[in-house]
Amino acid sequence: MKKRIVVALGGNALGNTLQEQMQAAKTTAKAIAGLIEAGNEVVIAHGNGPQVGMINLAMEAAANANANSPGVPLSVCVAMSQGYIGYDLQNALREELHRRGHNISVACLITQTVVDAADPAFKNPTKPIGTFYSAEEAKKMQQQGLAMMEDAGRGWRRVVASPKPTDIVEKETISAILNAGQVVIAVGGGGIPVVEEGGQLKGISAVVDKDFASAKLAEIVDADFLIILTAVEKVAVNFRKENEQWLDTLTLKEAQHYINQGQFAPGSMLPKVEAAMQFTASKPGRKSLITLLEKAEEGIAGKTGTIIMQ
Amino acid sequence: MKKRIVVALGGNALGNTLQEQMQAAKTTAKAIAGLIEAGNEVVIAHGNGPQVGMINLAMEAAANANANSPGVPLSVCVAMSQGYIGYDLQNALREELHRRGHNISVACLITQTVVDAADPAFKNPTKPIGTFYSAEEAKKMQQQGLAMMEDAGRGWRRVVASPKPTDIVEKETISAILNAGQVVIAVGGGGIPVVEEGGQLKGISAVVDKDFASAKLAEIVDADFLIILTAVEKVAVNFRKENEQWLDTLTLKEAQHYINQGQFAPGSMLPKVEAAMQFTASKPGRKSLITLLEKAEEGIAGKTGTIIMQ
Repeated sequence: MKKRIVVALGGNALGNTLQEQMQAAKTTAKAIAGLIEAGNEVVIAHGNGPQVGMINLAMEAAANANANSPGVPLSVCVAMSQGYIGYDLQNALREELHRRGHNISVACLITQTVVDAADPAFKNPTKPIGTFYSAEEAKKMQQQGLAMMEDAGRGWRRVVASPKPTDIVEKETISAILNAGQVVIAVGGGGIPVVEEGGQLKGISAVVDKDFASAKLAEIVDADFLIILTAVEKVAVNFRKENEQWLDTLTLKEAQHYINQGQFAPGSMLPKVEAAMQFTASKPGRKSLITLLEKAEEGIAGKTGTIIMQ
Repeated sequence: MKKRIVVALGGNALGNTLQEQMQAAKTTAKAIAGLIEAGNEVVIAHGNGPQVGMINLAMEAAANANANSPGVPLSVCVAMSQGYIGYDLQNALREELHRRGHNISVACLITQTVVDAADPAFKNPTKPIGTFYSAEEAKKMQQQGLAMMEDAGRGWRRVVASPKPTDIVEKETISAILNAGQVVIAVGGGGIPVVEEGGQLKGISAVVDKDFASAKLAEIVDADFLIILTAVEKVAVNFRKENEQWLDTLTLKEAQHYINQGQFAPGSMLPKVEAAMQFTASKPGRKSLITLLEKAEEGIAGKTGTIIMQ
């Protein structure tokens, strides 16, 4: 039966260089083409950690080389990373679908994610971005109002907030493309983070978690399924302990119980489980799946992965 | 009466810096919002000369700073420039439409333009890109197979071909967005240039003229009107001479006659007139308009600009 599915792909799975990305895009295309071939409506969301880092560093280097250049803000680097990644992904997927005999259009949309300027995350920025600075340089930057943090003995880095998404600006266009039976790549890197100020959208230096952005998008486009792809086939409790237990299903109640026990690592499995719970809880019948990229098709068929259900 | 319109906007009109671009996007939005408000279906195409130049320089600087980095090809820089420009344009236009009370979605699509690998332009690359090199550096780059050209006494630069567009890869998605009554930004910078090789699309280091790409897109999406925005209100013959004459209309026959006389400057008005002719000639009833950004609305109403008709 045809389903509307949002697939959230990790930025790390896309590699660290352009060459790695082109190869990773082909692997990804093979894994996702089957979902589309089966007649499902698919939105692909993806992370952009290494990619926006590369672009941000290049823009910083260019700005430092030219005293007249004011530099390029992080929000604009995210926009550029959506083009950088989306171009490869849309080509690889289009090619894989053509190879299988399906003339289905795939396109990437520059996407903005609205966040709340009052989000408590802004009071405690924790997401490191860009290059390393000396303690002295970091002090100057702090005096300019930037949040800086010492990063594991490697030097000082700028840190930004990771606020929760409240809306997706281009939602109507994403729906229009899906309704036309086409595939759309959207909310790349969690989307360009914007806040609303008197009817205007303002780009901000923040990073929206791509799993939460995908959950929000899945909710808005009335998806049936959210698939969060990660480095393990299933979610585990007592992860890497003697009594490790891989889970086929997780109800919202069970998931909350395990979260309360501290079973899922913050910054790793915890946000994935929380994003999955958020989508599952948003309407009866909605389900989330956490699994490996290459297991996505089997997972949707109920054969593997962890299903998060009501 | 509702028309389907492709508007081609110059990259220079978008400014040289991010700050200039944000301001220029607002001016552009005001000029284009009226066309949308009147119920027309609008695709916005745009150039990217200064913007892709900036991105290309930043990527070159980053690659030079890291011996392990293989750099980012021009085609990928074009993809990034589509995000960089599209993000500002879609925001400015959405905001202007909202201000006027219209809740109309505007979105930017990463777009690829197919060119023919056998296009004669590849034998004679003429479009300078990126930074300046010494004669010695240029010689080395020529030995590596890159085409180099001395640029007006300022040093040597890499030159790439400007082949003609033969297809737009994301045409079905562009049509789907238009059919849903939404506005789409596409073929930024003439589109990412790709050639077809055994069912695969390969990005190439070339630059597609944004006016020809816009004409091809207008043809494919069955537009009624192609508007090419430029720095003059009308096309002139005997431009800047005593007998200068501004033209309200140009038939295809007249246009060809003037081209034969050498009336239009190569690299300036000539490609605009040729792109306009190409669209006008593609089907009975199709018209092109060449005018200033701020005269687009009046031009469509037949009050100013130069109409290129059959």
